[in-house]
Amino acid sequence: MKFGGTSLGDVTKIKAAAVRIKREVSKGNKVVSVVSAMAGSTNKLIKLVNEISQTHERSEYDVVISTGEQVSAGLLSIALKTIGVKSRSWTGWQLPITTDELHSKASINEIKTEKLKKSIENGEVAILTGFQGITKENKITTLGRGGSDTSAVAIAAALKADRCDIYTDVNGVYTSDPRIVKNSVKLNNITYEEMLELSSQGAKVLQTRSVVLAMNYNVKLQVLSSFDNLPGTMIIKEENDMEKTKISGIAYSSNEAKITIFNVPDNPGQAAKIFGALADEAINVDMIVQSSTLNGSATDITFTILESDIISAREVIENLKPDINFSSFSEDSKVTKVSVVGNGMRTKPGIAKMMFETLANNNINIQVISTSEIKISVLISSDYSELAVRTLHDVFGLDKV
Amino acid sequence: MKFGGTSLGDVTKIKAAAVRIKREVSKGNKVVSVVSAMAGSTNKLIKLVNEISQTHERSEYDVVISTGEQVSAGLLSIALKTIGVKSRSWTGWQLPITTDELHSKASINEIKTEKLKKSIENGEVAILTGFQGITKENKITTLGRGGSDTSAVAIAAALKADRCDIYTDVNGVYTSDPRIVKNSVKLNNITYEEMLELSSQGAKVLQTRSVVLAMNYNVKLQVLSSFDNLPGTMIIKEENDMEKTKISGIAYSSNEAKITIFNVPDNPGQAAKIFGALADEAINVDMIVQSSTLNGSATDITFTILESDIISAREVIENLKPDINFSSFSEDSKVTKVSVVGNGMRTKPGIAKMMFETLANNNINIQVISTSEIKISVLISSDYSELAVRTLHDVFGLDKV
Repeated sequence: MKFGGTSLGDVTKIKAAAVRIKREVSKGNKVVSVVSAMAGSTNKLIKLVNEISQTHERSEYDVVISTGEQVSAGLLSIALKTIGVKSRSWTGWQLPITTDELHSKASINEIKTEKLKKSIENGEVAILTGFQGITKENKITTLGRGGSDTSAVAIAAALKADRCDIYTDVNGVYTSDPRIVKNSVKLNNITYEEMLELSSQGAKVLQTRSVVLAMNYNVKLQVLSSFDNLPGTMIIKEENDMEKTKISGIAYSSNEAKITIFNVPDNPGQAAKIFGALADEAINVDMIVQSSTLNGSATDITFTILESDIISAREVIENLKPDINFSSFSEDSKVTKVSVVGNGMRTKPGIAKMMFETLANNNINIQVISTSEIKISVLISSDYSELAVRTLHDVFGLDKV
Repeated sequence: MKFGGTSLGDVTKIKAAAVRIKREVSKGNKVVSVVSAMAGSTNKLIKLVNEISQTHERSEYDVVISTGEQVSAGLLSIALKTIGVKSRSWTGWQLPITTDELHSKASINEIKTEKLKKSIENGEVAILTGFQGITKENKITTLGRGGSDTSAVAIAAALKADRCDIYTDVNGVYTSDPRIVKNSVKLNNITYEEMLELSSQGAKVLQTRSVVLAMNYNVKLQVLSSFDNLPGTMIIKEENDMEKTKISGIAYSSNEAKITIFNVPDNPGQAAKIFGALADEAINVDMIVQSSTLNGSATDITFTILESDIISAREVIENLKPDINFSSFSEDSKVTKVSVVGNGMRTKPGIAKMMFETLANNNINIQVISTSEIKISVLISSDYSELAVRTLHDVFGLDKV
């Protein structure tokens, strides 16, 4: 049972989480709980760090930031004991959970489960601090924002848990963002692959990494609300009867920026230079299109990056100018990526046609297209993002899932 | 260099502490810094714990409470790096500092200094989280309020440091409380024994345990302000020329309560029963007087305890009534203990006479007296506490120290 920050946002909510755990224990289940920091506390800590220095060392950032989960873990354990449930809190170093050395965005290497198993055998609910681990040299690391989802799935995999329930402030995965599409429907089931595309295309229910991990280790994942008692969305392996569903959701992401580099001389290796230089600065490039060669000598290259990377990207491109000899480049942050995601795409053709036609009928210009086996994404002007999401939701009949 | 909570109360103060450390490093000193939690943060955490449950388990309390120092340590380390000083933060478990199992008031058993020494050899300033350690079973412990002083002295002892500087919000140890006695004087030197009596008699500059530790390991201790650049008070071993000073300070404590049990039958073992029962409830008894036997058959027993223990003490005494068969008992919280402390008392007689005469001349009634080799304490009505402290300060010429 993983509780996110909003599910532990104050003392009353922490007590409610304890009651929820007690209910599972009463059913005869053995429970391990993974906790995030109380809502707002991580942001307060980050603010303190940034006030001290904008160019802080990431390892000390992790020392400061990792304390939030320790507070929640201790408090939840106290809340459990108060209602008669045996429990014990565990920090990343106490198990330990070892990670690589990439401070503030570390990956889990190994989870030692001996102590955890003993704690469970003793009839205790083990409360684990999410989001963190230690390096081989005993330095504290954190897994990046939302990393507690990944901690929870990793623990579930290591313990071969029957299920990994992610308690959050929404009661499942929806066919689209209910704030935009009023008739969005909660999905009862979704495959890992679909969830992965939805997460990476902008749906913020689960951290993308946690879904990959769940898929790789076949962890049965459930997303559900900590504020009601309804079943949530089960994220599971593809099964035969799932092919019925063509499309499971429409995702969108507005944190995108589009860059076009004009008149790039058409020599081999130019693209590698550009994207290599961006990768060196850890700038993630998402969609890429290259225009047909103009007059056999030059081409335009368009790609999208995160809006927050635009300043560093600008610098990288300007530095490349003497070498690559392009004519100019343009930036556009007023773009949104809209994605149609569905396992059904594999077996039912025509989804792309239907999507493009729908957008055209609404006079929405498609700037860039990218596809995967179970997803089609288009980049459009932000002016049309709500219209696009709403219309696509209707056209694919997602209100009747 | 130990920095208390007020010395790290906000980002500006943390940066100022870093500058102070840099100054010592520039002089060629090797610095280990021990930090408290930022002022107010420990109280906030305690409030959270108490809101969850008044009867929380102490081990989880420690998990929550110990995070405050980790935040300060990380922030101070970042602040140092920002001004070009190599540094690294260390938590209690990273060294480790091992303690006994007495959660929330643990005692340090051992400090492993290998990693710390290596860090210092690498030219780093090591920043340690004060106030905490771990048990042999890797559970987090804390040392009780003000425990960071004890951490600092213990680290200084373990490293055989030349000096242990305790940075705080006052610029040294005064002959009395400057808020009451306007002409209080800062002492340049004071012996461990005197400091110990002053601390345990109510002066709040240093945690009593830290002074005992410094005395036992002969750690040269300095109390000084983190808000100016003046020398503080050195706490050192007694030396010959110190005998010049008769008295070094007047301390007072208003957190006292007086209890009198009337007509206790004069059989052997009655006092042991009373004080044994109080000790069983962890109630500390300070001053004790027993009246001369009345008519050879019964006696009155008066003693003082901390005001905060009065409810539990009342219960203990009521439970003893059937067994001991006393007539009644009274409580009085409107009492103050005033102490005259000075190494000179050992060699100069007449201090007690001077103290009692001064109080009598001011019509202040002495309720209980207790003495040690270098201290005389009297219990008086709280109405006269300021008058008593001020007059004694004058009579013993402490404004001219």
